[in-house]
Amino acid sequence: MRLLEDRIRKDGVVKEGNVLKVDSFLNHQMDIDLFNEMGKEFKRLFSEKKINKILTIEASGIGIACIVAQHFNVPVVFAKKAKSINLDGEMLTTKIQSFTHNKVYDVIVSKKFLSSDDHVLIIDDFLANGCALLGLIDLVESAGATVEGIGIAIEKGFQSGGQMIREKGIQLESLAIVESMDAKTGSIEFR
Amino acid sequence: MRLLEDRIRKDGVVKEGNVLKVDSFLNHQMDIDLFNEMGKEFKRLFSEKKINKILTIEASGIGIACIVAQHFNVPVVFAKKAKSINLDGEMLTTKIQSFTHNKVYDVIVSKKFLSSDDHVLIIDDFLANGCALLGLIDLVESAGATVEGIGIAIEKGFQSGGQMIREKGIQLESLAIVESMDAKTGSIEFR
Repeated sequence: MRLLEDRIRKDGVVKEGNVLKVDSFLNHQMDIDLFNEMGKEFKRLFSEKKINKILTIEASGIGIACIVAQHFNVPVVFAKKAKSINLDGEMLTTKIQSFTHNKVYDVIVSKKFLSSDDHVLIIDDFLANGCALLGLIDLVESAGATVEGIGIAIEKGFQSGGQMIREKGIQLESLAIVESMDAKTGSIEFR
Repeated sequence: MRLLEDRIRKDGVVKEGNVLKVDSFLNHQMDIDLFNEMGKEFKRLFSEKKINKILTIEASGIGIACIVAQHFNVPVVFAKKAKSINLDGEMLTTKIQSFTHNKVYDVIVSKKFLSSDDHVLIIDDFLANGCALLGLIDLVESAGATVEGIGIAIEKGFQSGGQMIREKGIQLESLAIVESMDAKTGSIEFR
């Protein structure tokens, strides 16, 4: 998606260790107009799919998922990273390794909000090694629901997550795929 | 706001310990159409205010804030509850006591995204004792920015947060104020 690639080139910052900071428009400050354009594009890309629910994971996926949901006219469910005392009842659970925070999270979704009737579009801001997505796919499958597709804002194409997900036969659409980036020059190449 | 009160009566669940579960439409599964009606109402209530940014706190405030932001045509910034290694640079920090999780969080916002030019509407899903809001107000004030108002979905009117915030002279608008609730009968009275 040209609009997103241009924005990453303009406002993204490449840091050592393959870190791409997009906190001025994507995952700390959030540009809602950009999210709406992303929502339109996901709707186009998944127009063949019958989707009745969007699933994301806290925290930075939530904003994108809610704006995208308007283009599908469906509710959003977000998976939670730790057990809250307010979140009782039966839970679907999985574990997700976070390399950013160097720890393993328990991730939960209430069984009330994912069932075998659900046709789910998973939305997240980043795809790198794919650990978060594998956890979300596991939650959907353990509910007996169907993953209709996965929509990602930015995929790090030089990491293995995208290939791993696509080899499962899931329709994965990343609006910008970074092929390579260079912290010294700040340059970013897209696929 | 009658629509939200009706929805709380219909789908909210009162639990022992003054817990009101609204996870089927507000803070786990999210009804985006309802959020848009809330956004319209906040726009009406804050129509006199010049607002150029919405501030919320992860995780459950983010979805509401992003949908509400469309009605003000402004970006959203969400405060983060723990230091991420991807979030470098100078930070505004505060501490927030969570009674739900029984711990104290460090809460941070990048200085890049809150400055003395900003006129901020704070949005969150719940107001009870007001600890989260006091933290967010502290972040805005430490940036030299102005709190133009606070928009809350559900206020627990029998806890002290609302009165404390209103006594500061801040325009606080809660779309539903629960005056009392009863876990035995499931009844909910609104102010």
